[in-house]
Amino acid sequence: MATIKDIAAKLGISISTVSKGLNGASDVSSEMRQLILDTAVEMGYTTKRMKKDAYKKLCVFVANINYESPSDFGYEVVLGFKQAASRDNWNINIMQLTKEFQAQEKYDTYMLKNGYSGSFILCLSPDDPWFEQVSGTKISTALFDSYIKKNSHVAYVGTDSSEGIEDAIDHLTHLGHTKIAFINGNRPSMVTEQRGEAYYDSMRAHQLPINEKLIAYASYHQDELSKCSGQIVENLLKEGATAIACATDMIAHQTIRECKKLGYRVPEDVSIVGFDDIPISAYTVPPLTTIRQDRIELGKSGYMALLSLMNHVSISKNLLRPQLIIRNSTEKVVDK
Amino acid sequence: MATIKDIAAKLGISISTVSKGLNGASDVSSEMRQLILDTAVEMGYTTKRMKKDAYKKLCVFVANINYESPSDFGYEVVLGFKQAASRDNWNINIMQLTKEFQAQEKYDTYMLKNGYSGSFILCLSPDDPWFEQVSGTKISTALFDSYIKKNSHVAYVGTDSSEGIEDAIDHLTHLGHTKIAFINGNRPSMVTEQRGEAYYDSMRAHQLPINEKLIAYASYHQDELSKCSGQIVENLLKEGATAIACATDMIAHQTIRECKKLGYRVPEDVSIVGFDDIPISAYTVPPLTTIRQDRIELGKSGYMALLSLMNHVSISKNLLRPQLIIRNSTEKVVDK
Repeated sequence: MATIKDIAAKLGISISTVSKGLNGASDVSSEMRQLILDTAVEMGYTTKRMKKDAYKKLCVFVANINYESPSDFGYEVVLGFKQAASRDNWNINIMQLTKEFQAQEKYDTYMLKNGYSGSFILCLSPDDPWFEQVSGTKISTALFDSYIKKNSHVAYVGTDSSEGIEDAIDHLTHLGHTKIAFINGNRPSMVTEQRGEAYYDSMRAHQLPINEKLIAYASYHQDELSKCSGQIVENLLKEGATAIACATDMIAHQTIRECKKLGYRVPEDVSIVGFDDIPISAYTVPPLTTIRQDRIELGKSGYMALLSLMNHVSISKNLLRPQLIIRNSTEKVVDK
Repeated sequence: MATIKDIAAKLGISISTVSKGLNGASDVSSEMRQLILDTAVEMGYTTKRMKKDAYKKLCVFVANINYESPSDFGYEVVLGFKQAASRDNWNINIMQLTKEFQAQEKYDTYMLKNGYSGSFILCLSPDDPWFEQVSGTKISTALFDSYIKKNSHVAYVGTDSSEGIEDAIDHLTHLGHTKIAFINGNRPSMVTEQRGEAYYDSMRAHQLPINEKLIAYASYHQDELSKCSGQIVENLLKEGATAIACATDMIAHQTIRECKKLGYRVPEDVSIVGFDDIPISAYTVPPLTTIRQDRIELGKSGYMALLSLMNHVSISKNLLRPQLIIRNSTEKVVDK
């Protein structure tokens, strides 16, 4: 473990300057402070603050997902994490992780200068500036719905997407559907990839032919989703789809709206299955058949994985089972 | 939750007979006892004994793997489980799970009549009689290196095999090897499948051609392994392999012996990589380059997964990172 003395020796500056830099004293320039922090990270230095129980701090970063209202997908994931971590007396800060913020701050440096012992990051995307930085970090980091290879300080927590999509396709085939379309989320995204592969595998498992025209990509973001979904849904229905599996509940609800606009009834003319079971899905017209992700438990799993990493147990993946919730947006196929 | 009264009503017998059957009283025939236990399991009845702290009991079943000596792969997995579970005051029994035993006893019934709250099963194979029974169980069950679909009472714990094989192939390609053979374990086995797929994926990732003649299947069992490995290793060397990745350390050690018999030096003529890092692998001649599975942590993960299941959190998969351990059985390829 490097000491302040080692950092001072490496930079050829005094120990007191290093100390001031680490503690953010005003008489050290911001450039010098950045250099000291970067060197401290590079040399594996940990501040004493981090070790003292009174200052035990974790950070939850939220990117590419809504979490502020109880109806948002991320809300309960963050809540579950806080519930589990609070029991162990951690102080927890929640940060919105914009691309601008990522461009300004380096991950390791930010964690060190703020005295965080570890973090839980929701939905870091491969095109996020921090993705590469987290790939090389030595700070314990649990990722929700994102996977980084070969870094024993980083764990991936999520729902078993493959089994979820399999549940959806199994349910639709039991209802007699064979022309099952799939509207996936946007790319690049590990979850999009997993769900796409699971669609192929499940269709094959039921000996159903794959028609590439029945596969479409929408978005996890409401704005983009509203823009693209009209044309997507129209194309799938023209292609003869009697059922549409969707990668999220938000996509499913938008799809139901588009079907209605085009004069199709749900579920009489077309069955729709979502993924997530966000709170509103039980109350829409019709109530949505979907694949539930237990978000409170996902948050708790995030904490358990992070705790393991901080104790030098290198969790790679920690996945929860999805659960099929049958409501009224799916029905037996009608021969036309 | 069913009561003794419900079981009595269903079977049309007295409550006292049901009670005697559940408690193994001698004046109830063994056939009647079996019927009562089967009905209790079917109706989801839990004995009071299970709920009382003093009788808190878990069972570790061990099949298809050695665990009795500290040099056995299973030893530390069982130990890690016991260490973690003992802290929560569980009583733990260890059972050898032979095929004969599985044929005599039903899983659910056995668990219920012995008052076990849950179990950890090492290396249940798809051709084990209990595999199907565990697939349908409602008793919390954590499986080491074995996966059951769509049962929210069963979790899979293991090492990320894909990343392990990728580490092995990456290491060999960095040393310049291109003719890399792979000796896998026996089938049917989920781990064999995973490692086989990972070999294909890793070779492709390095743009190396796949030669099916460089892929062989040996065995996880020493007796069968000794029988088949001579011919296997000879064939791979004839095919021009300069490196052999093995699915276990036992296979790797046997492969080194066969190479020596055939006049090949390890690592000068052929590099060998194992998988597991069993205790002897550091002391063999040459010491073995291998992929470490942290067995103590795997056992602890097994307990954490089981604890989650008993608390109605349906863990699907809990995987740990493998770790490449470079010793002396691998070396740079020599141009011939």
